Amino acid sequence: MDLQSLFYPKTIAIIGASSREKTVGNDVVKNLVNQGYEGKIIPINPKIEELYGLRVTADIKEVEEEIDLVVVAIPAKFVAENLREAAKKGTKAAVVISAGFKETGNTDLEDELRQVCQENGMALVGPNCLGAINPEIKMNASFGQLMPKLGHVAFISQSGALCTAVLDYAQELGVGFSKFISIGNKADVDEIKLIKYLAEDDQTKVILIYAEELANAREFIDTLCEINRGDNPKPVVILKSGRTEAGAGAIASHTGSLAGGDAAYNALFKQAGMIRASSIKELFDLAQVFARNPLEKATNLAIITNAGGPGVLTTDEATGNGLKMAKLSDNTKVKLDEFLPAAASSHNPVDVLGDAQADRYKYALEVIAQDENVDSIQLIMTPQSMTEVEETAKAAIETKQKTNKPVVVSMMGAATVKPGVDLLNKEGVATTSFPEPGAKSLAQLDKFVAWHKQANQPSLSFNDVDKQKVSDIFAKAEAKG
Amino acid sequence: MDLQSLFYPKTIAIIGASSREKTVGNDVVKNLVNQGYEGKIIPINPKIEELYGLRVTADIKEVEEEIDLVVVAIPAKFVAENLREAAKKGTKAAVVISAGFKETGNTDLEDELRQVCQENGMALVGPNCLGAINPEIKMNASFGQLMPKLGHVAFISQSGALCTAVLDYAQELGVGFSKFISIGNKADVDEIKLIKYLAEDDQTKVILIYAEELANAREFIDTLCEINRGDNPKPVVILKSGRTEAGAGAIASHTGSLAGGDAAYNALFKQAGMIRASSIKELFDLAQVFARNPLEKATNLAIITNAGGPGVLTTDEATGNGLKMAKLSDNTKVKLDEFLPAAASSHNPVDVLGDAQADRYKYALEVIAQDENVDSIQLIMTPQSMTEVEETAKAAIETKQKTNKPVVVSMMGAATVKPGVDLLNKEGVATTSFPEPGAKSLAQLDKFVAWHKQANQPSLSFNDVDKQKVSDIFAKAEAKG
Repeated sequence: MDLQSLFYPKTIAIIGASSREKTVGNDVVKNLVNQGYEGKIIPINPKIEELYGLRVTADIKEVEEEIDLVVVAIPAKFVAENLREAAKKGTKAAVVISAGFKETGNTDLEDELRQVCQENGMALVGPNCLGAINPEIKMNASFGQLMPKLGHVAFISQSGALCTAVLDYAQELGVGFSKFISIGNKADVDEIKLIKYLAEDDQTKVILIYAEELANAREFIDTLCEINRGDNPKPVVILKSGRTEAGAGAIASHTGSLAGGDAAYNALFKQAGMIRASSIKELFDLAQVFARNPLEKATNLAIITNAGGPGVLTTDEATGNGLKMAKLSDNTKVKLDEFLPAAASSHNPVDVLGDAQADRYKYALEVIAQDENVDSIQLIMTPQSMTEVEETAKAAIETKQKTNKPVVVSMMGAATVKPGVDLLNKEGVATTSFPEPGAKSLAQLDKFVAWHKQANQPSLSFNDVDKQKVSDIFAKAEAKG
Repeated sequence: MDLQSLFYPKTIAIIGASSREKTVGNDVVKNLVNQGYEGKIIPINPKIEELYGLRVTADIKEVEEEIDLVVVAIPAKFVAENLREAAKKGTKAAVVISAGFKETGNTDLEDELRQVCQENGMALVGPNCLGAINPEIKMNASFGQLMPKLGHVAFISQSGALCTAVLDYAQELGVGFSKFISIGNKADVDEIKLIKYLAEDDQTKVILIYAEELANAREFIDTLCEINRGDNPKPVVILKSGRTEAGAGAIASHTGSLAGGDAAYNALFKQAGMIRASSIKELFDLAQVFARNPLEKATNLAIITNAGGPGVLTTDEATGNGLKMAKLSDNTKVKLDEFLPAAASSHNPVDVLGDAQADRYKYALEVIAQDENVDSIQLIMTPQSMTEVEETAKAAIETKQKTNKPVVVSMMGAATVKPGVDLLNKEGVATTSFPEPGAKSLAQLDKFVAWHKQANQPSLSFNDVDKQKVSDIFAKAEAKG
């Protein structure tokens, strides 16, 4: 499936453009016009003539040029007919925001949509979704209000409403996106099709998915193994809801999907080398650490901190999740002892003390980054009155630019440390405000790298027996509901 | 021990006041002078005459009036002698910020301090600590830069540097404090003594502790059981580091304390009805939910949401942590169906749909708060273009004022929802930005209430056999290191 027309359209038609504010048909046009999209925008509505400075076309039949993408926000029963007309204009992708399909019992209508699109080679996103955003070309073909910053994280969500919150959090947390898409009922374009596309997308370094149910266990495993066994692996982080019986029940009531047994999903994720997030917040932490670090092992972690307590808490989190505390080489210890005050600790976690200014951090970072016993580095900083927030951030940025080792910086606090965090975000250094999630995410990175290495050993490749086993568990879980 | 002089002093002397900026002796005076403390401030230093508009006294011997509290920031070897002089001025509390005692091997010096204070009936905080803050009288007797908002959370930390970060986070997260204290080496005033004092403090509703090690298991259990078996229980939330072997090793290197076996701590916490937080962030979430709700059972949770996905994730978290999804009464369902649109769900989680304005939330909240099957309520809101952030917050505030049921509001996102979150914080409604921690904290509240109820049944009271068991585990763990 070619999703170029979805993410890089030169012409977009909005079927159901509206002049009434705070409606979907109005929001989509407003977002396209106001947020910097430079392609052609064609609003379609028989009742109005002008919208946000654009001429409105009465009917899609009357559009004279080719259309790459249509965004649809009209009542469910009129959608199929309009997509047929869109196909005649060469349209290769449709985002159907309209609801009223499978989720309300109208499976026939949804089947019809799928059929129209398949017959015409048109990629169908939705129905019942928020839309799609490509920050690279400032295209916000959704009714979410915010244009995210450009970055390396692709986000795919089965929940539209979650998207609006994620966009808002992302601005605060400094996370940038490569592609952002709400897939709703997944009548056609689903996670697997998007993963295949995003695997080839240079802008994307990590793919995040929020899913309530997944189909095609075997295809999922095949797709992921193919991508991640190659030289250009792309980590996929999934937040899968419905892990409890009550949660699965809530999904049934929400989307009408069968959620499947959670054990089966865990087996699938393990087989496919997928990373499972346990909460919305963890999605962001993982996004930061995966998008901004090379896929290199992080096993032996060195922590540099100006605060003993947070150093201990982070040690707990790191080792509790499978990392080891790096044994610093004698040479490193000697060098640290030479420069740091007597009360500092050259034992890992390296405590540069509460009165550390940037020079101590800079020195410790340089020495530790060169230690062969160290695979990854976490810098922790609490704001004391002598702390140099921005200079310390710059020291971390310099280290990050020189080393191939994964690095996370946790500047603890909020307003006081913001200038440093902003700098780190600008220069693409992974940050987590609280330190424990930084260590946990590094542990996940390490697990992914180990999985990738193992998957690349031909003798240990995943065989059909394994896949069959997961498929069986899946089938059983779905039969049970 | 009378800690009134520590938290409500009329006169404070700072031994080691300094005119050099970004030093402890300067920060403490600056904080006391600039942040609103209305008592008398007496800086002491033989080398300067004036500091921040105050006359500086050369030596504590020369002070003419009574002193309630001394804050000490001079080299370790001079501290004991100065405390002896302070005692002569009637001083009943000392905060020794100076380091260089047990943590650097100088146990004799620390023993001397303890002895001086005990002989003179003086409460000793520290040494090697950040200081103490009482927002109620705007007293910042610490070198932390921020005066926290007044609230109902008491915070006790064994790590000084963690305190500065916590103050910074708290401003961002809208958490207010009743008392805020760094206890450092705990030569005298420790968690138990503070808990006993705070149990009687009307301003404090929940006590948070960061600890690397705890002594006196038996006294801990006795103290907690006594407080929490009574009519006026006070929940204690503890973040205990050193739960892994590497973490315990890091503590040994950081404070020289023995961390003890984690299993022994868990047994202690369970016996004593203490709530264990698993991360710094969780401390804040628990603080919000405990400080702003009555200690009432939360077992059967009702969720009201405008977003299906977050509703499912929160259901997972709630039931995964021991809550149940409330079975709404038929009457409630009928009433909800009467008012909500057809596509909404009157099944719990109640989905008021993405286009819900405040009226739908208000109606659902009112109906659900009256349902006898519902013990607690979580409101989830994602920002859509039609969402009424402030009006929805007001609806939650009204409900909270009318009901005795625990309530948490999760307005998802950042800048877009801030006006609502600010309102909720102002009116004392518990908020968590991400919804899962809200549900998890309600589950902890529910567990505490159940513990309290059980502890109040005389036939099930904790007997000496249990306490002995925990003490034994403790002793073994400490012997092992």
